[in-house]
Amino acid sequence: MLENPRSPRVRAVAKLTKRSARQETGLFLLEGPQAAREALTHRPDTLVELFATPSALERHADVRDAAQDAGVDVVFTTEAVIEAMADTVTPQGIVAVARQSPTSVKDVFAAGPRLIAICEEVRDPGNLGTIIRAADAAGANAVILTGRTVDLYNPKVVRATTGSLFHVPVAVGADLETTASRARAAGLQVVAADVGGEDFLSHRALLSRPTAWLFGNEARGLDEEALAHADLALRLPIYGGAESLNLATAASVCLYESAFAQRADA
Amino acid sequence: MLENPRSPRVRAVAKLTKRSARQETGLFLLEGPQAAREALTHRPDTLVELFATPSALERHADVRDAAQDAGVDVVFTTEAVIEAMADTVTPQGIVAVARQSPTSVKDVFAAGPRLIAICEEVRDPGNLGTIIRAADAAGANAVILTGRTVDLYNPKVVRATTGSLFHVPVAVGADLETTASRARAAGLQVVAADVGGEDFLSHRALLSRPTAWLFGNEARGLDEEALAHADLALRLPIYGGAESLNLATAASVCLYESAFAQRADA
Repeated sequence: MLENPRSPRVRAVAKLTKRSARQETGLFLLEGPQAAREALTHRPDTLVELFATPSALERHADVRDAAQDAGVDVVFTTEAVIEAMADTVTPQGIVAVARQSPTSVKDVFAAGPRLIAICEEVRDPGNLGTIIRAADAAGANAVILTGRTVDLYNPKVVRATTGSLFHVPVAVGADLETTASRARAAGLQVVAADVGGEDFLSHRALLSRPTAWLFGNEARGLDEEALAHADLALRLPIYGGAESLNLATAASVCLYESAFAQRADA
Repeated sequence: MLENPRSPRVRAVAKLTKRSARQETGLFLLEGPQAAREALTHRPDTLVELFATPSALERHADVRDAAQDAGVDVVFTTEAVIEAMADTVTPQGIVAVARQSPTSVKDVFAAGPRLIAICEEVRDPGNLGTIIRAADAAGANAVILTGRTVDLYNPKVVRATTGSLFHVPVAVGADLETTASRARAAGLQVVAADVGGEDFLSHRALLSRPTAWLFGNEARGLDEEALAHADLALRLPIYGGAESLNLATAASVCLYESAFAQRADA
């Protein structure tokens, strides 16, 4: 039983809430039973350590069983240790450490994708996580993050993906120019979501084609240089009095519009 | 200059973060320059008091001008007073008190709406605010909250609407049965967003008709009784591995799908 919240082992896990420690070790933090379950089910190969209080493991028998099936040993701890490790206030007695395993831009396009989300300078962790979750739900084949986007393994991003991080391949640190040219070479059109773009509705039919959506910064959108890499820029219309839509909401609508257009056409 | 954060006047404003005080007074709290600006521009008649630090009013000259145009006096305060009044940590030096002015279900349908969002037991303030913002953006004519939904005037809801509360009429405390029958009488179909519903894509064409969308609880969705009031239940498809979509995201996709279908048909 791991009991001392100030022990070096506990501190090493807690440090993974910081980007520097994640970069140094190539590891990241998973908090709560849902994240642990998704990792154990979809990417057991990436799990390094699983910490749980005895009572949490009793409450979440599916996590215990999934750990057994995956051959992952559980380290029993106290509630205080779990709290010391975690970034959230409610890790529900379960924390895991996993190896970062992003995919590469090359592999994304080698797999013959039809729907991709590219995030250029998305800064809010909650937004990024929600976009990854929506991309997963809409059946996107991958998500690509350029180097200016918030760290994928930030605990707030991981939480907001609610497990989608383990379902959909995500590439990180990509260069937008390279990404866009690889997308085109793979037969995808690059469509920017941009407030200065053309009318969405009149170009809606184009969305049945294989598409890489390009999403920009929450406040500033996409700059000229980024827009130059897109084949087309579309503006999601605001029909009412709202000034704007939240980025994650707009991205979700765009991705589902593509998902529907591609399937309605087939 | 209002200087004492413990004065009765300041306490009375701060109390509006609590539902009981909002119910007693019929007032609610607006925090930050954006909320103040939207209220001054769209519903100056509802503004009761506007508090600001001199420097905040200098920084936000548009709020000062809008207050002048609306004939609303500004009460100058200190930073400490603003902080004592507000629910957020960053009210940016501006807080206002406004009169609650919900619309009635009867008036909603008397206006001949084509797109409505009904929220039945939405419990998370951020979700409700985001749904109201998305409904506004998608051009919905109104939002109707049944009695089981979180209080519209909760500061977290107000913040998450980012001003849309002042653009789109919102009815509160509605009875679902009455709402659904008024919707039908006004020529709208009631479509439930439900995980047990029929395939979205194969019924997509129906969305060009005047529609009242019915959204349920974040965790449990809509119960049998609520579903019985809908003409049709549709399930937003999950094409990838995601377990579910966030309620506000799903609602945004549904509302935009209707907005597009109604316009593409016209």
